[in-house]
Amino acid sequence: MFHIGRLSTVDLEEEITPEEVKSFLHQLFFFLKMRTNKTLLLDYDNSENQLFLEEERRMSHMGFRCLEITRWVICGLIGFLTGLIACMIDIAVEKLAGYKYLAVKQNIEKYTELGGLSISLILWAVLNSAFVMLGSLAVAFLEPIAAGSGIPQIKCFLNGVKIPRVVRLKTLVIKVFGVICSVAGGLAVGKEGPMIHSGAVVAAGVSQGRSTSLKKDFKIFEYFRRDTEKRDFVSAGAAAGVSAAFGAPVGGVLFSLEEGASFWNQLLTWRIFFASMVSTFTLNFFLSIYHGKPGQLSSPGLINFGRFDSDVSSVFIVFRGVLGALFNIINYWLTIFRIRYIHRPCLQVMEAMLVAAVTATVSFAMIYFSNDCQPLGQDNTEEYPLQLFCADGEYNSMATAFFNTPERSVRSLFHNPPGTYNPVTLGVFTLAYFALAVWTYGLTVSAGVFIPSLLIGAAWGRLFGILLSFIASSQSIWADPGKYALIGAAAQLGGIVRMTLSLTVILVEATGNVTYGFPIMLVLMTAKIVGDYFIEGLYDVHIKLQSVPFLHWDAPPTSHWLTAREVMSSPVTCFNRVEKVGRIVDVLSNTSTNHNGFPVVSDTTENDEPGKICGLILRSQLIVLLKHKVFVERASSRLSQRKLQLKDFRDAYPRFPPIQSIHVSQDERECMMDLTEFMNPTPYTVPQETSLPRVFKLFRALGLRHLVVVDNENRVVGLVTRKDLARYHVGKDGLEELHLAQT
Amino acid sequence: MFHIGRLSTVDLEEEITPEEVKSFLHQLFFFLKMRTNKTLLLDYDNSENQLFLEEERRMSHMGFRCLEITRWVICGLIGFLTGLIACMIDIAVEKLAGYKYLAVKQNIEKYTELGGLSISLILWAVLNSAFVMLGSLAVAFLEPIAAGSGIPQIKCFLNGVKIPRVVRLKTLVIKVFGVICSVAGGLAVGKEGPMIHSGAVVAAGVSQGRSTSLKKDFKIFEYFRRDTEKRDFVSAGAAAGVSAAFGAPVGGVLFSLEEGASFWNQLLTWRIFFASMVSTFTLNFFLSIYHGKPGQLSSPGLINFGRFDSDVSSVFIVFRGVLGALFNIINYWLTIFRIRYIHRPCLQVMEAMLVAAVTATVSFAMIYFSNDCQPLGQDNTEEYPLQLFCADGEYNSMATAFFNTPERSVRSLFHNPPGTYNPVTLGVFTLAYFALAVWTYGLTVSAGVFIPSLLIGAAWGRLFGILLSFIASSQSIWADPGKYALIGAAAQLGGIVRMTLSLTVILVEATGNVTYGFPIMLVLMTAKIVGDYFIEGLYDVHIKLQSVPFLHWDAPPTSHWLTAREVMSSPVTCFNRVEKVGRIVDVLSNTSTNHNGFPVVSDTTENDEPGKICGLILRSQLIVLLKHKVFVERASSRLSQRKLQLKDFRDAYPRFPPIQSIHVSQDERECMMDLTEFMNPTPYTVPQETSLPRVFKLFRALGLRHLVVVDNENRVVGLVTRKDLARYHVGKDGLEELHLAQT
Repeated sequence: MFHIGRLSTVDLEEEITPEEVKSFLHQLFFFLKMRTNKTLLLDYDNSENQLFLEEERRMSHMGFRCLEITRWVICGLIGFLTGLIACMIDIAVEKLAGYKYLAVKQNIEKYTELGGLSISLILWAVLNSAFVMLGSLAVAFLEPIAAGSGIPQIKCFLNGVKIPRVVRLKTLVIKVFGVICSVAGGLAVGKEGPMIHSGAVVAAGVSQGRSTSLKKDFKIFEYFRRDTEKRDFVSAGAAAGVSAAFGAPVGGVLFSLEEGASFWNQLLTWRIFFASMVSTFTLNFFLSIYHGKPGQLSSPGLINFGRFDSDVSSVFIVFRGVLGALFNIINYWLTIFRIRYIHRPCLQVMEAMLVAAVTATVSFAMIYFSNDCQPLGQDNTEEYPLQLFCADGEYNSMATAFFNTPERSVRSLFHNPPGTYNPVTLGVFTLAYFALAVWTYGLTVSAGVFIPSLLIGAAWGRLFGILLSFIASSQSIWADPGKYALIGAAAQLGGIVRMTLSLTVILVEATGNVTYGFPIMLVLMTAKIVGDYFIEGLYDVHIKLQSVPFLHWDAPPTSHWLTAREVMSSPVTCFNRVEKVGRIVDVLSNTSTNHNGFPVVSDTTENDEPGKICGLILRSQLIVLLKHKVFVERASSRLSQRKLQLKDFRDAYPRFPPIQSIHVSQDERECMMDLTEFMNPTPYTVPQETSLPRVFKLFRALGLRHLVVVDNENRVVGLVTRKDLARYHVGKDGLEELHLAQT
Repeated sequence: MFHIGRLSTVDLEEEITPEEVKSFLHQLFFFLKMRTNKTLLLDYDNSENQLFLEEERRMSHMGFRCLEITRWVICGLIGFLTGLIACMIDIAVEKLAGYKYLAVKQNIEKYTELGGLSISLILWAVLNSAFVMLGSLAVAFLEPIAAGSGIPQIKCFLNGVKIPRVVRLKTLVIKVFGVICSVAGGLAVGKEGPMIHSGAVVAAGVSQGRSTSLKKDFKIFEYFRRDTEKRDFVSAGAAAGVSAAFGAPVGGVLFSLEEGASFWNQLLTWRIFFASMVSTFTLNFFLSIYHGKPGQLSSPGLINFGRFDSDVSSVFIVFRGVLGALFNIINYWLTIFRIRYIHRPCLQVMEAMLVAAVTATVSFAMIYFSNDCQPLGQDNTEEYPLQLFCADGEYNSMATAFFNTPERSVRSLFHNPPGTYNPVTLGVFTLAYFALAVWTYGLTVSAGVFIPSLLIGAAWGRLFGILLSFIASSQSIWADPGKYALIGAAAQLGGIVRMTLSLTVILVEATGNVTYGFPIMLVLMTAKIVGDYFIEGLYDVHIKLQSVPFLHWDAPPTSHWLTAREVMSSPVTCFNRVEKVGRIVDVLSNTSTNHNGFPVVSDTTENDEPGKICGLILRSQLIVLLKHKVFVERASSRLSQRKLQLKDFRDAYPRFPPIQSIHVSQDERECMMDLTEFMNPTPYTVPQETSLPRVFKLFRALGLRHLVVVDNENRVVGLVTRKDLARYHVGKDGLEELHLAQT
């Protein structure tokens, strides 16, 4: 008795380790999330069933060439539309923010002398909150998936995990509206991340030749209605988005590849490049017309760092990614807090409005208390120079940093001549903006984290550059703090998002000067190494918090211990080649297992031993078969079956009806269904002894969703799914198992 | 009788189609080539046998981290050494060419007045021929594989086909020597292609921690002694080579990926990037010191296009890739001619010398007959301005184009102010240089095709620009023919090598201006589309002529007809798990089959039916086993076997001894060998019905060398090798089968 008591006490005490708490929290979040969000997995391995093979074999060489041309046309379209959307967002934000700043500026100027500046503050806060409220309302009540930058979701999509509604038309509309509102509302956000999401949605829509939301089917591009093809187009869309956001077509392609692709194909890459190119050209073309300078094509991206002309080869100061890691850690805890406590839409909208008001207040306070007067330049680069308490012919530089869209602020920090900003101003600005940006990312508004990161980094870099010029004697080399601003911006952004090659290229393309490549590269590398020591990148943190089965590049290094036998799910629900309809309906309706792929075995399973594998069939395929009632009366007669076309599957893609909506009568339950024609007759299989890294490589390289594990008689003994692989990761003490969302 | 006669006549007549002739020629070349060149295949799929798994399992998390750090160190070393080599080549060429031009110039100046210019011609021709002879002698007699640019060979290596001796130290030495000689000898060649090859050799050497040629084993990096790891490092080396050649680190990474990688891994890419970065930095650093400007770092690459500062957004003239295709077609026929008739080393050296003399003569004739005098600029950008028959204070511009290293000529064409060159001069130059370059590529000298292509394109582009400026009225827009030169250079190079994304980035990085990206991109795309209509890229043409089993990105589109059953080789030589030594020796010694991988089957093959697959063992592994005499007396006792370590396999890698060198006595032949521990117990298998594209995808994505085809009882029925897949390609009338080298 005593013994047992003591033992259980010990057990209890041992159980409550920090790891356990974390794991419990994970499960809690998962539960909370999963009420609304059920992730789907995508199948990037073609189901090469008889129907598909027949179609392919019927197609001539000319047919394939036409398909190839169609792909190019679609990529062109994707680029064009993405560019248009970027253009629209840019113009809308500029107009709205322009009206807002004008109103506030006039108000401030009116009350500076009178002394009633609190009225200006209130006006500013109210205007900001109103904009943010509109955006937040739309996001919270109409489409919660449109919140944030959307980059984690697109990363997941390209990885093979589809978060529901992520590529729908409605999401796109809300996203565009939301981002216009939140940028115009003065939040510490950028419009670049959402562009990437928008590009992906456009791609997913255009490539399918129809809109399910609008119930409109153009009857074109039917060949592309499957996951493999769609993924390729979504890569192109994301690249086009990056390209439009930063004017960086090569960076866009690299972003798509770094985040999504596992298999590099020259032709595909070239198509993605084409989409990026068209996108940046479209944006450039229409913005030039809007700015009244058609033909000049001087705005390749939403953000333009301006041309850096001189040489920076001496700037080898390596900034740390510590600040970036700090950002991620704070944001991680904040996000956990949000998931736990702020999950009602009303609360979310109120929080967003609160942040907007606080942003306005903080900005105002800093403008008010600083007296950092600078002479007004001849060239009038500032669009809204605030005189405030400065002498005539001067303007308040602190006010300029805050009283502007973040893109313009970044440009000022890069390019304004030395001496424009006073170090104290910059220091306070960095801290305040850092706090605001951390708080803002994760709000229920559409917003990107690129620009705030760049802004914080630029301010901090410029500050560092100024301090260094105090110390260093040779003024000629250390003179331009704008370069430190650029390097600081790169370090901060790198520390937060942890992208590598693609970010280097994006930044180089945005600055328009290749000589900066080398220092940017060094800085990004250091930022990544330092940052990775503390916590993962921001996007990975958010992906982890959504507990989706995301597959990384490699299996954890120490996982050679594990074999397919330990990893696989077993026993597996199998179907016979000719299966009873009733059993299929029962299996599909069973919500506790909820499998998505079923091995098909040869009909020799009368005794209990598992059957020999002869195919793999997907839940979606079975549902289409049930819906079209492809039944035979008895097991033997196969003639009466209705001939189903590949078209029937494509029409149902990607929103297959749930099993509950399909009515199967009692008589029909007794019928049989012949799966031979519809199953994939050559699924990939591995023996039970295969090591985890080997299974992982196969999975990742081929984009699989199910991998059948067989014994040496080719009998099905288990099924490895993405979830089985994604749960292993390297922790502090070696291999750990994660708890993941049921899929 | 009559009937039979007529039929056979018809048959004969029908047989001699052009296709047949071509195929016969292919076989002939193959025969001629294969006397000296026997390609090897690389295995990019790890053989995860028990020894390997045990080692991996013994390794701690810390061990893996150390390995990772080692990989970074090696990449740094590769970059450093590649940069050093590039630096050395550059300085050597500059010195030698400097002496040569100085001598010739003095001679010309001496004889211009006297009228004995034929002496100058002879001096020039003799100097050129002497240099070329040295280089050609070394290549032809010491290491024929060092001929050409080496890019096709590196493409093959990364694809999985190893042309013998391609990554040896000796090849590197000869290559470096050869390229210095041929560039200094004034041939129409560049030193950029060979840099890529050099980088790859450095990588293959450094990563193995030993040199077999020098019989020196440093006992480090032993973990990396296998094909998979070596391939990764060779990618890094090739990237470092590109990076050093063009000062384009991002372009280098993309080149490696475009040409080699099939599986994109973020960490690997980042390491490759690091190597590229170090390489360009090293080159820059040492060249700056050499030029007496340490710390300025103004020479990031071997070729530097100079900074283009103005905007070219209006330059949307799309050049055709026709000229590029023409280059390839002529070179194709020339190469065939060479393979047939000029295969004796003496002849090859003589041809190279002839080309060198002709190059000098042509150049001289053009200089002599042109009277294209231009005023000497103040800045004296030309290093060897030739006055010739021009008035004082003027120089002969034609002479300048020829009387210089090609790199400098390209720069002059890009940057000299409008009016420097007279259109007729340029036209004649283009034609002459085109002919020379076609003739030169494929000679038995180490030489690259990048610079000649750029030079032809630049001349032709500048010519076009000048003509356009005659037509167009608005002089302001069409003024600078240097931009047309750049676009023309891109078009010509794109038309010849058909690289896409990587070439764009390389050119952008070399010009140092991102705004040129868009026109370059358009031009490359057009050049590729137009060029592909006529013939493949130059490197692919050369790869095809070597008839190696090169796998492209995708299976031919119309190949869904074919299944693994039709493609596979059958029957397969299998071994039992415990096999008689005599049988193994016999199978390995059988030169007619010469297989490299053998499925291991379970020991139940007493009757004739094939056994169940239980592993795969490689020829190289069997040879190591035989060499160490890992035999057991009888099938039952397994204890007496000597314990073999993974180290024994690594020590033998990559030059496994031939089977003939291993002596096995008659007694030993009766012993048994237990393969269980050494075979890969989980080889990838596919069922017989798998379609060719599916098999292809598996092969390409995982870098396989052998794929076992099994029936539904898991019995071995065939083996698909790289050769089986590579022989299908799309011809004019659909799918065609190629004849490939036996491997």
